[in-house]
Amino acid sequence: MTGIEFKLTHTDGPARRGRVGTAHGVIDTPAFMPVGTAGTVKAMLPESVAGTGAQIVLGNTYHLMLRPGAERIDRLGGLHRFMNWPGPILTDSGGFQVMSLSEIRKITEDGVRFRSHIDGSYHTLTPERSIQIQHLLDSNITMAFDECTPYPATEKEARTSMELSMRWAQRSKDAFVERPGYGLFGIVQGSVFEDQRLESAQTLADIGFDGYAVGGLAVGEGQELMFGTLDFTAPALPVDRPRYLMGVGKPSDLVGAVARGIDMFDCVLPTRSGRNGQAWTAGGPVNLKNARHADDPRPLEEGCPCPACTDYSRAYLHHLVKAGEILAMMLLTWHNLTYYQRLMRGMRDAIEAGTFTVFQKTFHETAAAGDIDRL
Amino acid sequence: MTGIEFKLTHTDGPARRGRVGTAHGVIDTPAFMPVGTAGTVKAMLPESVAGTGAQIVLGNTYHLMLRPGAERIDRLGGLHRFMNWPGPILTDSGGFQVMSLSEIRKITEDGVRFRSHIDGSYHTLTPERSIQIQHLLDSNITMAFDECTPYPATEKEARTSMELSMRWAQRSKDAFVERPGYGLFGIVQGSVFEDQRLESAQTLADIGFDGYAVGGLAVGEGQELMFGTLDFTAPALPVDRPRYLMGVGKPSDLVGAVARGIDMFDCVLPTRSGRNGQAWTAGGPVNLKNARHADDPRPLEEGCPCPACTDYSRAYLHHLVKAGEILAMMLLTWHNLTYYQRLMRGMRDAIEAGTFTVFQKTFHETAAAGDIDRL
Repeated sequence: MTGIEFKLTHTDGPARRGRVGTAHGVIDTPAFMPVGTAGTVKAMLPESVAGTGAQIVLGNTYHLMLRPGAERIDRLGGLHRFMNWPGPILTDSGGFQVMSLSEIRKITEDGVRFRSHIDGSYHTLTPERSIQIQHLLDSNITMAFDECTPYPATEKEARTSMELSMRWAQRSKDAFVERPGYGLFGIVQGSVFEDQRLESAQTLADIGFDGYAVGGLAVGEGQELMFGTLDFTAPALPVDRPRYLMGVGKPSDLVGAVARGIDMFDCVLPTRSGRNGQAWTAGGPVNLKNARHADDPRPLEEGCPCPACTDYSRAYLHHLVKAGEILAMMLLTWHNLTYYQRLMRGMRDAIEAGTFTVFQKTFHETAAAGDIDRL
Repeated sequence: MTGIEFKLTHTDGPARRGRVGTAHGVIDTPAFMPVGTAGTVKAMLPESVAGTGAQIVLGNTYHLMLRPGAERIDRLGGLHRFMNWPGPILTDSGGFQVMSLSEIRKITEDGVRFRSHIDGSYHTLTPERSIQIQHLLDSNITMAFDECTPYPATEKEARTSMELSMRWAQRSKDAFVERPGYGLFGIVQGSVFEDQRLESAQTLADIGFDGYAVGGLAVGEGQELMFGTLDFTAPALPVDRPRYLMGVGKPSDLVGAVARGIDMFDCVLPTRSGRNGQAWTAGGPVNLKNARHADDPRPLEEGCPCPACTDYSRAYLHHLVKAGEILAMMLLTWHNLTYYQRLMRGMRDAIEAGTFTVFQKTFHETAAAGDIDRL
């Protein structure tokens, strides 16, 4: 398969350093992808997103199909042009948000029928329609349509769900139109059950995808169980293709997952928490709402190159958060995305240098010794 | 008085082109000052505000004294440093917002007692305290503490209010600590009554200020009556000092007021309307909520150098507004401030060239022929 390129340049234990090539540019892995739900990484200009070091953003099929509509975005030249993001774009399949956001839904073998959370209108998503929408959006990395198995699930529930996702994965593959620089990722399901995860991974490898995602984690099972599931799932994925852990996560999640061989991540945490007055730093999380910052002339994080840290005091950021100012959301989102990209770069450099174990140790010590607010 | 410099470089009929010199930089007049209510021009980075061409921003004494507090801002190095705006800052006296925002208020000869709209706490503003707060903020242009006479007012009500403001103007002057590059402006009151406006202007000129503001307009009297009041008020102001029309206004207000000899303006309109999906253009107002923009690939305003116009379609801006995205507020605020600065620059250039009458005619024709949405 030559839809998108992947070159694994370094390994350090299970941790991997690589490069994904798409029609819209390169992604250095391990990579964190900011989430641009409705065609915008909230509270950020796209050039500012790129300035943090991000090389790819994520768009949500569910949101974009409902508003402004996939056919409309296609008429307007595709999502890159629509949102002024010239780099690579990954879109999810819509399956996850149908379950979490829509009002009424009915799952059949064919797909999912649901009501829009925006205007109550009825819509259907099938593997074929999801892939078509992602093509209309001009997504560089299209995700197979799947059911994100809820947690907890019994073994029987998890198997029924996983097997449906595998049939949908084949239909997604059949519907996908190959083009150079565009690819399709399959999604491994199977909840926390080893036999199901291995079976799912093998099924997807047999179908053949440009990359392999691990779905159904970060849904309430906790970090320990997530890491435990990765311990047996990641080694079952094809070594020569990128591996994407969906919807993850906290900085410590990212470090632990890279240590287990994951290459790509997305999560709303840095953007959403930024809009709520919360910052992520090497010294741990900082809650700018906390009154202890009201008179603090120090920067949020010493040495961070983002404008929140170079141009303002904690006292000012605290003031903006308390006053509900939009600039608070802009600056803290900017900082959090910068921190996440600094973290990813640190991991890439460590893997290249063969010092990832040292990096992990330092990461945990710094966060534990740091300036932590309870978030 | 040498607190701040003012050089009148050109006149074209009553219209004036000049330059105000402060300790933090120069302001070319006629000038529009974006409003940075609580220490931020909402939804804008300060460097972006400067990038629109703005040379001075306004801060609100009422908001800043309540949160984060004037003494705190002083401890943190003053408002310029706190909000990362190195240019000139003008602060209002707090009087206007005490009347419009606070819950309970009692006006006496001494000043105003009121309850904070934020936490219900009690505060007192007097001329002396208002000036002290503005000094703590390190404001380059301090406004005298006055009562903004409500509209409509009887001649008797207007006179009582104006005479109180004149006594407070003297107390403001007495409380003001002179420093090079810092100045104090008096505020003419007298509602729409010529004799009172002339008397107020003379009283202030006798006290002696660095500049003279026209207050108590744009409070519901309408453009015609506002212009009529300016027709007799502006000529009564000292010719060698800047003239500031407070809280104004729409683009046509600015053009008409410059034609009557006004040098400085502030208004929340471009920023507030930007946050509400409304744009100001040379072709008139545009409401991006309007469904007619949903498929429009054209820029908001052809030739405008702001990012909203150079990087995005009307269709995208419409989408952002409908989706309630923060980026809509960021981009439309940016555009509106850019348009306002383009308008001011156009007026300055026309006055320099002696073609202000032509400018006025073209301004009205373009807006009338343009792409107007009812706002």
